[in-house]
Amino acid sequence: MKEYTAPLRDMHFVLRELTPLEEVARLPGCEDATREVTEAILTEAGKFASGVLSPLNRVGDREGARWRDGEVTTAPGWRDAYRQFVEAGWNALSCDPEHGGQGLPRLVSALVDEMWNGANVAFALCPMLTRGAIEAIELRGSEALRRTYLPKLVSGEWTGTMVLTEPQAGSDLASVRTRAVPQGDGTYKLEGQKIFITYGEHDLAENIVHLVLARTPDAPEGVKGISLFVVPKFLPKEGGGLGARNDVRCVSIEHKLGIHGSPTAVLAFGDQGGAVGWLVGEEHRGLEYMFIMMNAARFAVGLEGIGISERAYQRALDYARERLQGTELGARSRERVAIVRHPDVRRMLMLMKSRTEAMRALACAVAAATDTARRHPDAARRQERQAFVDLMIPVVKGWATEMAVENASLGVQIHGGMGYVEETGAAQHLRDARITPIYEGTTGIQAADLIGRKIARDRGAAAAALIREVREVEGQLGRRDSALLAAIGARLHEGLAALERATEFVVGTYGPDVRRPSVGAVPFLDLLGTVAGGWQMARAALVAHQRLGEGAGEAGFYRAKLATARFYADHVLARAPGLALTVVEGAEGALAIEDDQL
Amino acid sequence: MKEYTAPLRDMHFVLRELTPLEEVARLPGCEDATREVTEAILTEAGKFASGVLSPLNRVGDREGARWRDGEVTTAPGWRDAYRQFVEAGWNALSCDPEHGGQGLPRLVSALVDEMWNGANVAFALCPMLTRGAIEAIELRGSEALRRTYLPKLVSGEWTGTMVLTEPQAGSDLASVRTRAVPQGDGTYKLEGQKIFITYGEHDLAENIVHLVLARTPDAPEGVKGISLFVVPKFLPKEGGGLGARNDVRCVSIEHKLGIHGSPTAVLAFGDQGGAVGWLVGEEHRGLEYMFIMMNAARFAVGLEGIGISERAYQRALDYARERLQGTELGARSRERVAIVRHPDVRRMLMLMKSRTEAMRALACAVAAATDTARRHPDAARRQERQAFVDLMIPVVKGWATEMAVENASLGVQIHGGMGYVEETGAAQHLRDARITPIYEGTTGIQAADLIGRKIARDRGAAAAALIREVREVEGQLGRRDSALLAAIGARLHEGLAALERATEFVVGTYGPDVRRPSVGAVPFLDLLGTVAGGWQMARAALVAHQRLGEGAGEAGFYRAKLATARFYADHVLARAPGLALTVVEGAEGALAIEDDQL
Repeated sequence: MKEYTAPLRDMHFVLRELTPLEEVARLPGCEDATREVTEAILTEAGKFASGVLSPLNRVGDREGARWRDGEVTTAPGWRDAYRQFVEAGWNALSCDPEHGGQGLPRLVSALVDEMWNGANVAFALCPMLTRGAIEAIELRGSEALRRTYLPKLVSGEWTGTMVLTEPQAGSDLASVRTRAVPQGDGTYKLEGQKIFITYGEHDLAENIVHLVLARTPDAPEGVKGISLFVVPKFLPKEGGGLGARNDVRCVSIEHKLGIHGSPTAVLAFGDQGGAVGWLVGEEHRGLEYMFIMMNAARFAVGLEGIGISERAYQRALDYARERLQGTELGARSRERVAIVRHPDVRRMLMLMKSRTEAMRALACAVAAATDTARRHPDAARRQERQAFVDLMIPVVKGWATEMAVENASLGVQIHGGMGYVEETGAAQHLRDARITPIYEGTTGIQAADLIGRKIARDRGAAAAALIREVREVEGQLGRRDSALLAAIGARLHEGLAALERATEFVVGTYGPDVRRPSVGAVPFLDLLGTVAGGWQMARAALVAHQRLGEGAGEAGFYRAKLATARFYADHVLARAPGLALTVVEGAEGALAIEDDQL
Repeated sequence: MKEYTAPLRDMHFVLRELTPLEEVARLPGCEDATREVTEAILTEAGKFASGVLSPLNRVGDREGARWRDGEVTTAPGWRDAYRQFVEAGWNALSCDPEHGGQGLPRLVSALVDEMWNGANVAFALCPMLTRGAIEAIELRGSEALRRTYLPKLVSGEWTGTMVLTEPQAGSDLASVRTRAVPQGDGTYKLEGQKIFITYGEHDLAENIVHLVLARTPDAPEGVKGISLFVVPKFLPKEGGGLGARNDVRCVSIEHKLGIHGSPTAVLAFGDQGGAVGWLVGEEHRGLEYMFIMMNAARFAVGLEGIGISERAYQRALDYARERLQGTELGARSRERVAIVRHPDVRRMLMLMKSRTEAMRALACAVAAATDTARRHPDAARRQERQAFVDLMIPVVKGWATEMAVENASLGVQIHGGMGYVEETGAAQHLRDARITPIYEGTTGIQAADLIGRKIARDRGAAAAALIREVREVEGQLGRRDSALLAAIGARLHEGLAALERATEFVVGTYGPDVRRPSVGAVPFLDLLGTVAGGWQMARAALVAHQRLGEGAGEAGFYRAKLATARFYADHVLARAPGLALTVVEGAEGALAIEDDQL
């Protein structure tokens, strides 16, 4: 079985021609991200992904992480891979140089993250969560917390977790019951049970730093009474080193559909008198801090969807090229051909390929906007870019992960019966992908955030700005003398009209009757992702058309980009008007039915 | 965890009001299928499904079937359940009374099959394959074969298999290599390896009757040289009883994504000199006979999709009713509500419910047409109904199974994080469902059959007849004074126009360039299924409107039917125009891309 190969050619295309790295590298603090440095990093990351992480993907799935007496052992080879990951400095890639990081722009680290996810998503979850913990402590932690934890977390010697969920409180954090009682010495004692804690216990690193949501004794009810605490597995000693074991225990780990390599822990805090914790920032503002981490985490889960899609595509393509079956359709020859020649197999491959490339380009546009929103000298520009990022985070998370499930499922289908046999590996991608539309907020949660905070609140202003930008591209498509670009333009035109109709509906109905647009919230998210992906593919097509006209090299690559953009327009973007109709008309049936008739 | 409950209310609705059993019961040989008898059978089958098969579904998944030294042991409890199944006469339900069957119309046995599949699809596969073997022997077997095998297969004392696939030949049966050499005494000796043989070895019954595709020594190449053989595991003795073990051995069973309870065997024929087999019908006509069985099997796999969808829906609905989370959207109350109240959860439930009901109604329409095509005294009527059946078999198979994967995936999503934990049971339905669009011909194979043999060959005549029939229903929707029916009518109108456009395209391009319509074959199948499902939901809405107007009882049920039909129109049928666009425009990108740029 072939290992994962980083899609460097398409990544370079995005960085050179679609979302130019040069613009990001002009931002203060990003000057080191030259093309040479970045391409060297991508090449090295690709080698690490293929050579170290990818070969451990199957063993992680097969052996899984094992729980025994509160200890969790990861699959054979994983400890060593994590050691190499840390030693090579990969953990620190996007972290602040002040704490030992390399300060790479998100635009670049997003592509590196995609590689880790494509090679081994269960492994990649560990550094992803560590980065969340780093961000929370960086942003709101006291000087002491920063000094004690950041260097260890940035280097990867210690790992981090996000500890939110409780059995009675899944997406509904208002119901969190874990208690944190101040001890008068600056510490708190925590008590409560938490579930679904990714890498909540493991043997990859010597210490685990839990970021825990809990309630102080006099806290108000609901989300406004939640605070955020640092609760390490081992208490750090003054001046370095590890002290006593804290009162947090892994009770069990879940038997899951996929990501078997990644332990999902049930954690008991304070069974023996209370787990020692330190407050992050101010009391009662925990949810606000958690949301800052969560935005980054949501984007990161979107990248998981892209990585898994790419991997599933590569595996299906390999199989389709090697598997001989049937003869060339419409040809006289009785010679058997590889199934890649069959139109329906091509359709499935192109569906996977075009959606993956669209998602990658869109994620990079959002990553570059994140860099700009964080670092641009001009406040107005920062604000405008932040509005775009805020609009697109739920879309990247929700759309790319839903598409990942579909892509991985197509990957199984392309394999036929072999796809259903576990040893082939195609089924693992489907099992792994299936968590991504669930954790860090289900697609329903993303869509509610999208239509409420991102569309209705500004009365569609951010969406209107995006629509204007895409319409610009549509105009350019029409001005080139190309039937192919015109066909893409026609689909984009219909897609934009659909998005406008749906946005107007959401803005108009959200206040008067929030239930009506809420039935169509996920179709709206799907529509926005579909059109935004079409925008990026249209931009890619314009670049490719230009390059081919100039007689630049790599004509095969640019012709393929045009074909892929055309395919996306006719097979994916073509769904937009139907989605808008569902948004606008679709509330009736769902709201009319009586509960007992479901 | 609740067990499967047969959806008797909706099944009765279909039989009483949508696809009237009375009409089928007028056919010669169907006279015994009165409403009373049928409803008693459905009630009893529902009890057996809930009480015996459903509780074994999880243990089958967890323990799976186990291989050891060529023997396969099914999961604990399965042998006993099969014994009860046979003793209660369930195996013989739709078989010919001449061989001990009960001769029930397909319309009724289809609903019973849906129950077995909903309760335990891995179990249901065994009798499903036995029925295939029965049909082949009934249809083309010699008198001796019929006398020896049919009573045992009909009673279920022996089970059957379909043995087609070889490692180098999946969907491409032209490549079958297994050899069958005549011995001069009326028997043949078979030699070759077969894979993916469902229930190819097991401990449920004392004998297994393999129906095997193989080549005789002087057979022409390709599909025209394939013959069909009966190869029993144990050779039957003259006058009853079992004789010598035949030379067929189970080499291994597959480790699969789902349907773990059902052993998928690799079978070696003739390792010790040749497996004894008997020819079915004439030499070289094996594929033709196999296709007869396969049509029935394809329809039966469609029923698997419906059964799994229903089961996944029931589990998700139970969870959504019990899981308290968040507050009522748009309401002042801070009281926590069950998630069934959340608009997006309702949307997902309604998507599962409306598609499942549409598929059930459509499958019943096809089952009733099968009965008519087989038994109606008027040849023209038989022929017309057969054309409808032929058109719809690939649609029921392809569409219902693709929808089953989506429905089961939604079932996981409704459970949130709990859906990803295997003990919840939601994930099993997704894993089980994923095989259904693959075996008995992938969706791609169904779609190729649809556009080639069922659309292009008669230049769209069968499709045109269907469109006329649906247009009739559209007209009725417009004539009732109801905004809801009018809204459904509008979607149906657009759906029909889309189907007409796409059909014209397929008819017009299939001859000149078969590759073009072939790229859009699966979207065409999706479109036809979507519109046909909309037709059935529109008919259901007309009935419900009528009953409510009459002030008949069960108003809640009929109002729910209207809401469900409306939901289907806006959320499922709304996709039709986009699908037609994909069919008509979508070939360019897929055919333009060069192989090495994929």
